[in-house]
Amino acid sequence: MNVLKASHCLLALSVLFATDLPSALAGKVLVFPVDGSHWVNMNILIGVLHSSGHEVTVVRTASSWYIKEDSPHYTAITVTLPEPINIEKPDFFITFLSKMLEIQKRGGSPLAFVEFYWQMLTSLYGMHRQASQLVVEIFENPVLMKQLYEGRYDVVLTDPGLPVGVLVAHKLGLPMVYNVRWITSGEGHFVVAPSPPSYVPAAGSLMSNRMSFGERVKNIFHYVLNMCIDQFIVRPEYDKLVAHYFGLETDFYHLLQGADIWLMRSDFIFEFPRPTMPNIIYIGGFQCKPSEPLPPDLEEFVKGSGEHGVVIMSLGTLVKALPSEITSEIAAGFAQLPQRVIWRHLGERPHNLGNNTLLVKWLPQNDLLGHPKTRAFVAHGGTNGIYESIYHGVPVVGIPLLFDQFENMLRLQVRGAAKVLDATKLDSQSFLEAVQEVLHQPSYRENMQRLSRLHKDQPTQPQDSALYWIEYVMRHKGAAHLRTESYKMPWYSYHSLDVMAFLLAVVLTVGGAVILTIRYLCLCLCRRKKSKLE
Amino acid sequence: MNVLKASHCLLALSVLFATDLPSALAGKVLVFPVDGSHWVNMNILIGVLHSSGHEVTVVRTASSWYIKEDSPHYTAITVTLPEPINIEKPDFFITFLSKMLEIQKRGGSPLAFVEFYWQMLTSLYGMHRQASQLVVEIFENPVLMKQLYEGRYDVVLTDPGLPVGVLVAHKLGLPMVYNVRWITSGEGHFVVAPSPPSYVPAAGSLMSNRMSFGERVKNIFHYVLNMCIDQFIVRPEYDKLVAHYFGLETDFYHLLQGADIWLMRSDFIFEFPRPTMPNIIYIGGFQCKPSEPLPPDLEEFVKGSGEHGVVIMSLGTLVKALPSEITSEIAAGFAQLPQRVIWRHLGERPHNLGNNTLLVKWLPQNDLLGHPKTRAFVAHGGTNGIYESIYHGVPVVGIPLLFDQFENMLRLQVRGAAKVLDATKLDSQSFLEAVQEVLHQPSYRENMQRLSRLHKDQPTQPQDSALYWIEYVMRHKGAAHLRTESYKMPWYSYHSLDVMAFLLAVVLTVGGAVILTIRYLCLCLCRRKKSKLE
Repeated sequence: MNVLKASHCLLALSVLFATDLPSALAGKVLVFPVDGSHWVNMNILIGVLHSSGHEVTVVRTASSWYIKEDSPHYTAITVTLPEPINIEKPDFFITFLSKMLEIQKRGGSPLAFVEFYWQMLTSLYGMHRQASQLVVEIFENPVLMKQLYEGRYDVVLTDPGLPVGVLVAHKLGLPMVYNVRWITSGEGHFVVAPSPPSYVPAAGSLMSNRMSFGERVKNIFHYVLNMCIDQFIVRPEYDKLVAHYFGLETDFYHLLQGADIWLMRSDFIFEFPRPTMPNIIYIGGFQCKPSEPLPPDLEEFVKGSGEHGVVIMSLGTLVKALPSEITSEIAAGFAQLPQRVIWRHLGERPHNLGNNTLLVKWLPQNDLLGHPKTRAFVAHGGTNGIYESIYHGVPVVGIPLLFDQFENMLRLQVRGAAKVLDATKLDSQSFLEAVQEVLHQPSYRENMQRLSRLHKDQPTQPQDSALYWIEYVMRHKGAAHLRTESYKMPWYSYHSLDVMAFLLAVVLTVGGAVILTIRYLCLCLCRRKKSKLE
Repeated sequence: MNVLKASHCLLALSVLFATDLPSALAGKVLVFPVDGSHWVNMNILIGVLHSSGHEVTVVRTASSWYIKEDSPHYTAITVTLPEPINIEKPDFFITFLSKMLEIQKRGGSPLAFVEFYWQMLTSLYGMHRQASQLVVEIFENPVLMKQLYEGRYDVVLTDPGLPVGVLVAHKLGLPMVYNVRWITSGEGHFVVAPSPPSYVPAAGSLMSNRMSFGERVKNIFHYVLNMCIDQFIVRPEYDKLVAHYFGLETDFYHLLQGADIWLMRSDFIFEFPRPTMPNIIYIGGFQCKPSEPLPPDLEEFVKGSGEHGVVIMSLGTLVKALPSEITSEIAAGFAQLPQRVIWRHLGERPHNLGNNTLLVKWLPQNDLLGHPKTRAFVAHGGTNGIYESIYHGVPVVGIPLLFDQFENMLRLQVRGAAKVLDATKLDSQSFLEAVQEVLHQPSYRENMQRLSRLHKDQPTQPQDSALYWIEYVMRHKGAAHLRTESYKMPWYSYHSLDVMAFLLAVVLTVGGAVILTIRYLCLCLCRRKKSKLE
């Protein structure tokens, strides 16, 4: 008897006939997305909300390149900024990437490290300044504010990577749901759940959850560094805004932590296990879906690969192309494979491209990854692509370039599902060997398929979970009971330092009193002995 | 359009047609329960496993009063102990309760506090010694051990309140699932998730999650007290066993924390929000179900209550009756109500019982709580009863007597869903007033019904969740990826104390070197000046 399937049916039926749930008319959702690759998954969530009958309004800037004004799934509210936000500029990431690669090439030296961070921080500071300008632009526009108030939204859905929505939600007095992995300056868990640095790797530390003593020292360094970046680079601008618009009874940190539900784009088959909170719902891989048939020409190309199969390469939404010296090494490496290669590449055509390699401006990534002929995925390590490769069980050759991509690839590498390369040291031979290793060593595919099985084995699929909890917040007008209010405590109380100080004072006072008493008694005794002797 | 229902259907269908899940034949589950009231809910879980086609074996002692040898749901393995475990003796709790009530009556004084704890600790120590004897009895019985090995079980399901199953699972090398709220000496979360004492109330502290400075001092006192109890009273016996049977490469603490999945009998509509871990699954209230029609005589009695409705009273599995002086006060209080009362009472019939009160030896609690005529529930605050009252939205008058009952009632009181009385100070008037307050002040019922709505609004119902995750552990032979291995670190590494010490040493060394250099330079300068002057 197939017990498992039976119990799934039971589960399904119990959900299907769940009585006593309050019914609701279509809700109204106000969305503040982050542009660029983050928009890719927010847009999927919006599609889900739309097809469930909810009315979605997206606040975008006039200069946004990714977030279109017209969509069948949402109504857009467009705000015009004096200058476009950096991440909205199509060439911003290419310029930024070249700079970062150039610095990494000189890697290892403390100077390069400082320069690397300087570049990162300048860019971070710039983006957050622009985001805070957007907040001012919204708050100071009475027509827009009236429109937002009168919209009578049920919930604000936002990506707190740029926390515009956080401030607006507070202004409008609306409950808030995050679609999140990164907040202003780090991984979202760090501000909401206690995260012991002994086994929770800090963002940027490039550590796993098993650290040697030296690695733990390095991890704490990154932990403190992130706190400083947050404290001195990210927050001041927002704190000023909060003080100006909401007075001194709150601060930005409290607003940021005040979300009712955190839809965390993470899954513990990928993320290292770490403390979490009751209002964090894991929706990692919610964008994944079974593959669909390929367009005829691509299907023909893939089919023609025979028993060798195909290798896919894409570097995500932001990076259209790598510097030409890296590109030609990759092309040379690919040319020596018996596999066919489909490569999303928007830059100049490499002169040494092999006959087996098809350059495309866009590829149906999910459908290709789900194709039985696909043998490996050469990827940069953006979360969207990573989860698609996990979903379809395709092992990865990683060329991380920016931001969290290094850490994402590390997570797959630790689980034996990816081989990671350093883009700045890449040559055709090392690239070829890496791809061949992933193709021919069975453990890569086996590990990835194990992750795939575990990822799919969840009582509620991540996309359904996301929808459920957004609707939950609408139904109950928040989810305060799942959220600790601990972050409203002063930091010394949160860490019980005041209690420790008090107890220490008590111990010292009592101890002091005892010592003084004993000393006094001894003195008396000595004096009596002395007087007796005299 | 009823969007919500539609999205539920979508959810249900997505679970129903969840493809790619490995199918499995019936699993074999080895259960080590805790006797008494804990058995009530473990037995429900066993029923669920049985009806899903799994084969369940329960290890019980010959003297067990609650865990029967014959059941249609499981096969029993019976172990004979030299003397029965305390909690198996039907009169143990009555004697224990009288003692505790007597001490509480003298309450307030430090002496009473010490005596209270002394009684608790003696009883705790006794139970754990008996449990460790049970482990020895199992390990030293080669026939039984052979039977257990040859049973080829897929998973050990155990209540770690008495950790017999924890040691046996390790011996058999099996994955482990807990049905848990309490572990050896405290609330289960405390050993698995970081629990800052600034907002997580320690067991026994009788605090909520919002504490004043003084309360936080008291909470830390209880926190440390619990650690000491665990360290010096509970663990030594088990540590000896672990050292003897498994050698020195592990200890009891590590085994206890090694469960793959913790099915936590808790729900955050009841429990204060606190940090949790990815392998903790919340199944609070999994025993609840819609009510069924009452037996005809009871239905007639209930119906006869007219518009006033009925009040139910029961003090749970363990406590059959209260001391007669308390009982007669309760009877006198009940007698003055216009409501009818159904009271589960096994002791002597109170002489002053009102005409409106029906004494019963057993009552269909769930069906009565779900009856539309039921207005209030007088309860001791055991978890089973509490969740049933939440499920059916019936407000509570609490008379907590022992163990976690005080804290359970506190949680309902904080949410405005219960009025709590002190059993040792109870008289007919105060009892009557409390019942009337709960009956007539609408907030009690409203708050309880709000909790009920929130409790039922979960994407997967708790019982289905429990079944799903037990099967998950069987399918994947554990769930190591959801579990941190942090507890295998030495405590000073876990708390980063070694890193702190190292960094402090670096700062002191560098600081010292700088100071010495400056001093040396100053000295040189002074000498030169001096020699110039000379």
